Amino acid sequence: MSAHTPLLPRKPLPDGFLDRVGALVGDRLATGEAIRLQHGQSEAHFEPVLPDAVVFAATTEEVAALVKLCVGAGVPIIPFGAGTSIEGNTIPVMGGITIDLSRMDAIIEVNQEDFDCTVQAGVRREQLNEHLRDQGLFFPIDPGANATIGGMAATRASGTNAVRYGTMREAILSLKVVTLDGKIIRTARRARKSAAGYDLTRLMIGSEGTLGIITEVTLRLHAIPEAISSAVCSFDSLQGAVDTVVQSIQIGVPLARVEILDDAQMRAVNRWSKLDYPELTTLFFEFHGSQSYVDEQVRTVEEIAAMNGGGEFRWSNLPEQRSKLWKARHEAYYAAVNMRPGAIGWATDVCVPISRLAECITQTREDLDKASLPATILGHVGDGNFHVIFSIDPNAPEEMVEVEAINQRLVDRALAMDGTCTGEHGIGLGKQHCLVDELGEAVDLMRVIKRALDPQNLFNPGKIFTF
Amino acid sequence: MSAHTPLLPRKPLPDGFLDRVGALVGDRLATGEAIRLQHGQSEAHFEPVLPDAVVFAATTEEVAALVKLCVGAGVPIIPFGAGTSIEGNTIPVMGGITIDLSRMDAIIEVNQEDFDCTVQAGVRREQLNEHLRDQGLFFPIDPGANATIGGMAATRASGTNAVRYGTMREAILSLKVVTLDGKIIRTARRARKSAAGYDLTRLMIGSEGTLGIITEVTLRLHAIPEAISSAVCSFDSLQGAVDTVVQSIQIGVPLARVEILDDAQMRAVNRWSKLDYPELTTLFFEFHGSQSYVDEQVRTVEEIAAMNGGGEFRWSNLPEQRSKLWKARHEAYYAAVNMRPGAIGWATDVCVPISRLAECITQTREDLDKASLPATILGHVGDGNFHVIFSIDPNAPEEMVEVEAINQRLVDRALAMDGTCTGEHGIGLGKQHCLVDELGEAVDLMRVIKRALDPQNLFNPGKIFTF
Repeated sequence: MSAHTPLLPRKPLPDGFLDRVGALVGDRLATGEAIRLQHGQSEAHFEPVLPDAVVFAATTEEVAALVKLCVGAGVPIIPFGAGTSIEGNTIPVMGGITIDLSRMDAIIEVNQEDFDCTVQAGVRREQLNEHLRDQGLFFPIDPGANATIGGMAATRASGTNAVRYGTMREAILSLKVVTLDGKIIRTARRARKSAAGYDLTRLMIGSEGTLGIITEVTLRLHAIPEAISSAVCSFDSLQGAVDTVVQSIQIGVPLARVEILDDAQMRAVNRWSKLDYPELTTLFFEFHGSQSYVDEQVRTVEEIAAMNGGGEFRWSNLPEQRSKLWKARHEAYYAAVNMRPGAIGWATDVCVPISRLAECITQTREDLDKASLPATILGHVGDGNFHVIFSIDPNAPEEMVEVEAINQRLVDRALAMDGTCTGEHGIGLGKQHCLVDELGEAVDLMRVIKRALDPQNLFNPGKIFTF
Repeated sequence: MSAHTPLLPRKPLPDGFLDRVGALVGDRLATGEAIRLQHGQSEAHFEPVLPDAVVFAATTEEVAALVKLCVGAGVPIIPFGAGTSIEGNTIPVMGGITIDLSRMDAIIEVNQEDFDCTVQAGVRREQLNEHLRDQGLFFPIDPGANATIGGMAATRASGTNAVRYGTMREAILSLKVVTLDGKIIRTARRARKSAAGYDLTRLMIGSEGTLGIITEVTLRLHAIPEAISSAVCSFDSLQGAVDTVVQSIQIGVPLARVEILDDAQMRAVNRWSKLDYPELTTLFFEFHGSQSYVDEQVRTVEEIAAMNGGGEFRWSNLPEQRSKLWKARHEAYYAAVNMRPGAIGWATDVCVPISRLAECITQTREDLDKASLPATILGHVGDGNFHVIFSIDPNAPEEMVEVEAINQRLVDRALAMDGTCTGEHGIGLGKQHCLVDELGEAVDLMRVIKRALDPQNLFNPGKIFTF
């Protein structure tokens, strides 16, 4: 049992259409059920819907030719990266051709002096960071999953480093995009800033493939800091943990990462990653800078934590210790879902002004404590963004219904605090009614833009809003 | 003699239209020539064009009602803040009603713990910073002029602090906007980040009033640093100055401000602000942080400067010294223009990848040295953005022609380096052909958006592109 995936009217492909696609891309056209299923399902809780075919694209020009073919025949086009999105963002609910960009994984150029690089959309973030390491640079956006850069752009991803380095919104200088008429545009030059016309770059970021196909991304990079220090600290209260973060930011500490995990999440992490942290509300910190500046940041935050009921800091200063710590954090989702064998996961994604975060998490925890199934909380506390992770029995349909109700109460709570229903996962299939609750008539303006750029509703139809 | 301001077809107001506007806004409707002239001219080099009338708006709801009136009658609507833009961005080239938002100057709320505030569009940045000071917060974006926040949003302004704190693109969390149908939308909630649908906030930022009227802005704020230190350092070469900045950023120094002024600009500054700096290529620095961190940054940058031919650092650590230094920097435009009595100014605005900046400035200086009129160079070197300021004899039309040619060569040079024709001033009237050179067919996509959101071409018509 998965959540209901809304099915929209689906037309069969026109006669001979796949022959024309095949003539263009050769054996990179796949119609086998296994590959179609792989591109029709989601990491999350949606029922799969299969595309009619999958094309593994090789070049931007080929994507443009495919778009022309599809538009000419009225066939939906769904861009696909690593398939790690979790709001059903790539499920082809109206069928059509999924364009898998994962083989477009070339790192086109790195400009060390300019702290930027240009990559094809299918490059994965871990691959990019391995490539950059020798040049003393890194790409900070880290959503946990080893997503593609194109997919991260399309969903406006962020993750653990956003408190210091921003989200994909800030990380991107320019995009190469295939538009509906099969044209290839570049949304901006490589200058660090520009006031040249409408911000097409930001319009495409977070548009979930509904306005065009992103094929290349120019990214801002950062110098690998001289010193990096990570630590874990337990708190005797949620409020104490949140206050520690707020006060640290207020005093100007540039926290590179600060993650909150509740007691239930810490139990799951200890079990999954074979660790022995206290099973209390916990902050995972990371500090970046020169050695003396990191030392200063650490002293400041330790003092603030002590005033707010924090325990000892457990340090991980060696690279391998740090990797172990952040690996545990990255696997927290799987750790939580697998509290029950065979369970399926569902992650919520609200983000609220930080002054309301402790209240929002506390009320949510109270709601979860009344639930019949296990759930944990973890989040990017510096941004006010947190996730509830449910571990759902796939054979108990009433649990899915219960989770839907809890999630709706959570979204309502966040909106009442002037927050958003999605900090970083996107709207996809799952949050379309929440988007309207959140932004009201502004959604009509989004629809006007969609209709202007894609009047036939062929680019990833059925996502963000119905046409 | 000013530059040619392109005049577009202008229709007289419909009979009785101003009576209907007057019934709505009372004596805040102005039709006198002096006020219309004030709203029809520009700080820069464009010939004035007068609006048919000016309304001093009082509320968002009133702006919405005005928009409905104007749209119903097919009358252009031009939003106006402080009038400090310099690409003719507010000149009503098709006539119509200028909506002056400067009386909408309420600071609606400041959320200290969330580091944000919401202000009406007419609030000026100096007013905001005075209001915030007691709360330990500041709003960093500083374009020099005491612009309104709404105007800064509409032109995607930046300025001296952008190297550390970003531009208006990064500074804005949410906007209240009046759309063409007279609806009032809010583009986002107050959460620090969101993946909820298309980024209408960023679409409106930099749209120069052509897609809607911004009436309220929710801004990110920053904690006033514990220590602020400013310094001036002269260099024996342009390359040495630029290399100092690049190497400082590369090593991770978070420069809060770093401005470059060439020898001609330093002569102008000394004369205008009665100072005695060496008349050489000079960097103006500002460092923010804890005292010990500022000390560390300063030591690092002093070492790097010394290796690159920099002289002694002249420090301004007391607030009044600092204000004097930055006042001189802010008045640099007037200092340069007034090298010749009665002259009018023209500021260029290219921005290039920083690896190309020294080359771009050097080639530009060579071009300027061949010119028949005086010109200086200053810029936001950390972003790769610099301005040439011309001091033009208004009675010598051949000088305007010469400046236009130099500017075109400068834009071509910047574009060849993958830069932009405008780092922060916008397209307005003056750079429409440059925008097409820069972004090609992407401009067609902008036009599609404009036509979808404003099919009658009533919001600030004639700006960014012709319809």
